[in-house]
Amino acid sequence: MARRTPQLAGRTVRVLVCTERKTFVTRELPEVRVTFEGIEGDRHAGLTRPSDVRTPWFPRGTPIRNTRQLSLVSSEELAEVAQGLGIPEVLATWLGANLEVAGVPRLTLLPPGTRLFFPEDAVLAVEGENTPCIGPGRVIEAHHPDGPKLASRFVKAAWQKRGLVAWVERPGLLRAGDEVRVMLPKPVTYVLPG
Amino acid sequence: MARRTPQLAGRTVRVLVCTERKTFVTRELPEVRVTFEGIEGDRHAGLTRPSDVRTPWFPRGTPIRNTRQLSLVSSEELAEVAQGLGIPEVLATWLGANLEVAGVPRLTLLPPGTRLFFPEDAVLAVEGENTPCIGPGRVIEAHHPDGPKLASRFVKAAWQKRGLVAWVERPGLLRAGDEVRVMLPKPVTYVLPG
Repeated sequence: MARRTPQLAGRTVRVLVCTERKTFVTRELPEVRVTFEGIEGDRHAGLTRPSDVRTPWFPRGTPIRNTRQLSLVSSEELAEVAQGLGIPEVLATWLGANLEVAGVPRLTLLPPGTRLFFPEDAVLAVEGENTPCIGPGRVIEAHHPDGPKLASRFVKAAWQKRGLVAWVERPGLLRAGDEVRVMLPKPVTYVLPG
Repeated sequence: MARRTPQLAGRTVRVLVCTERKTFVTRELPEVRVTFEGIEGDRHAGLTRPSDVRTPWFPRGTPIRNTRQLSLVSSEELAEVAQGLGIPEVLATWLGANLEVAGVPRLTLLPPGTRLFFPEDAVLAVEGENTPCIGPGRVIEAHHPDGPKLASRFVKAAWQKRGLVAWVERPGLLRAGDEVRVMLPKPVTYVLPG
């Protein structure tokens, strides 16, 4: 069982929420409550969601289980994205993130099935990488109108650095300043036959 | 996107259900309907489940999201387990499996996040390996009372061959004889720092 206890730890830098429909940009709160539906009141909360461009193997709008309840970013990776874009900083809120974590190396590469444990009961399960699209790039560009082509450059600069999406395995609180412990799934290597 | 389209295909050999509380042994049906809760009427159905010996990092009985709605086994792996035990066959029903699949090499090693697509809309998401415990071994022993220590030998013989647990991403039908297509998650390699 030793292999399945948390192997890494980091810190919750900030928690964020978006309760509006016309923007994905999030705002910071000291803490948020998560239920099996996600963050209470957040635009991505729900046990199910309609399939979209992220799941092109389903007809658009098909109800599927919501594995993208929360989006997570890493302070260190955000700094790398900013550096790549030549701007001072990229804020978690611009990316619509719900949680900014520090101290977990290469957060974006945590594999599907990874569990994140928080001290106030909440546990998140990683669905996988949140692949960068141009939306957050446009927000960055709006904050740096003099930056050359920031919107489209964001997609490349944020490659494997844009964080994760996750769903709630156990309800509880997410709170700025709290520790987060990371439990990797059992390592498997599946090699395609032939 | 090509990388995320189904890369493997197999066949649903049988679908099985357990509607009783006093046994985990399943019985075969021509087809079953799955909802977001799992197989309708099955003992493992539910959006949530109480945590148990499989999740020792939670206090026993804590409500957590149910990622073990269905259990899947492979015809080829069952044959290998039987061979290892020196008996003619190990039946999916003895292991409490809900789905027996043939033609997907090393089914048990499909990584968390793998999706299984069925022709009647249903899609299952793989939580991970179903680690063998002694319960099914006792059922096997009950069918082979002259076999030496089959119950305890099962745990070793079924190592990495006992199949998977999964949850429903999209409702639909599971039907014996239908094709199953396998979509692996995007490959990630996460190496622990240090």
